[in-house]
Amino acid sequence: MTDTSRLDAQMAFLMEADRLKTILRATPIADDSRPENSAEHSWHLALFALVLSEHGEDVSAERVIKMLLLHDLVEIDAGDVPIYGQVDTAAVEAREQAAADRIFGLLPADQAAEFRALWEEFEANETPDARFAKSVDRFQPPNLNLASGGGSWRDYDVTWDVFESRVGQKIARGAPALWNWIAPRVRRFLSH
Amino acid sequence: MTDTSRLDAQMAFLMEADRLKTILRATPIADDSRPENSAEHSWHLALFALVLSEHGEDVSAERVIKMLLLHDLVEIDAGDVPIYGQVDTAAVEAREQAAADRIFGLLPADQAAEFRALWEEFEANETPDARFAKSVDRFQPPNLNLASGGGSWRDYDVTWDVFESRVGQKIARGAPALWNWIAPRVRRFLSH
Repeated sequence: MTDTSRLDAQMAFLMEADRLKTILRATPIADDSRPENSAEHSWHLALFALVLSEHGEDVSAERVIKMLLLHDLVEIDAGDVPIYGQVDTAAVEAREQAAADRIFGLLPADQAAEFRALWEEFEANETPDARFAKSVDRFQPPNLNLASGGGSWRDYDVTWDVFESRVGQKIARGAPALWNWIAPRVRRFLSH
Repeated sequence: MTDTSRLDAQMAFLMEADRLKTILRATPIADDSRPENSAEHSWHLALFALVLSEHGEDVSAERVIKMLLLHDLVEIDAGDVPIYGQVDTAAVEAREQAAADRIFGLLPADQAAEFRALWEEFEANETPDARFAKSVDRFQPPNLNLASGGGSWRDYDVTWDVFESRVGQKIARGAPALWNWIAPRVRRFLSH
C-alpha cells in the first residue's frame, strides 16, 4: 500500500465515522432539549474516563479512552440498542459483527486489526480496561437522566429494581466507587 | 479533600462539560443536515488523531487525544469563533482565559492544573503534540465542507487564497502529509 492509498483508506474510515453524529440515543442531553447522539456520547465518555480513571483498578486511562472513542461505531449500521428496551441479543450481536467487518474494514489492515481487537475486548468485558470502560458507559446515562428530570427512565417506566439489575451491577463490576456515588442519588429519584 | 468530595468535584466538571453539546459550529456535519456541535467535533478530532498520528513527527497519539478532548471546553462560556469570521483576538483570548479559570477550576486542584496545562500547550501551538493537534483541528472542517458541498465556505464566500492563508498554513505546520492530501481537493472545489 502506498502512502497515498493508506491515507485514502484512513480518510474513508474517518468520513464514514461522521455518520455516528446522526445516531440518536434514548437518553437526552443534560438540559433535556434533545436526545443525545452517539458521537457526542462517545466524547463525553472519553472525558469521563480521562477524569475518573483513578477510581478503577489496574486501568490504563489511555487504552480506555481509545476503546470508548471506537465502541459505538458499529451503531452506524446496527443502530443504538436502548438499555431498557426488549432485544433479541443474538440478532443484535450478528448485526454488530457485520458492522464491525464493514466499518473497521475501511482502514488499512494493521489499523483495522488493532481497532477491531479493542472493540472486541470492550464487548467481551473481561479485562480491567474493558470492565472500567463498560462501567463508564453505564454510569454516564443515569447522570443525564438525573440532570434532565427523568430522561429515558420516564420513557421506559424504569423502577429502582430494573435500574439496579440492568445498569447498577455493570457499573459496580468495573467501578465500585462510581456505583457507590450514584446509587443513593438514583434510589432517591426513582422512589418518587 | 475526602474521596467523596473529590468525586463530587469531578462530577461537577463532567456535567458542566455536557453543555459543549449545545455549542454550534460554522461547519455542517458531512450529510449537510445540520451544524456540527463542539462535543461531537471533539470526538471526531480525537478519532482523527488516533488514526492519523503516524503522519505527524514526534507525536504522542495519547497526549494529542487528551488535548483534543479538552481543547474546546472554553467555548461553553466563550462561544465558538468561526475561522472565517472577523474577530477581536485579544477579546476572545480574555474570554477564553476566564472560561478556563471557571471550567477547569471545577476540578480537584491537581487535575485542574494538569488539564489547564494541556489546554495552554494546545493554544501556544509550539510543541510537536500541540502542532499536530492544531493541524487536525484545521484539517477536519474542510473535509466536512467538501462532503457537504461547500459548508462554511459557502456561508463566508471563501476563496482558495483565504483558505490557504487561514487554514492551509496551520495544517501544513503540524502535518505536511495531511496538507498535501487535502490541498488539491480543496483547490479543485474552490475554483468552481
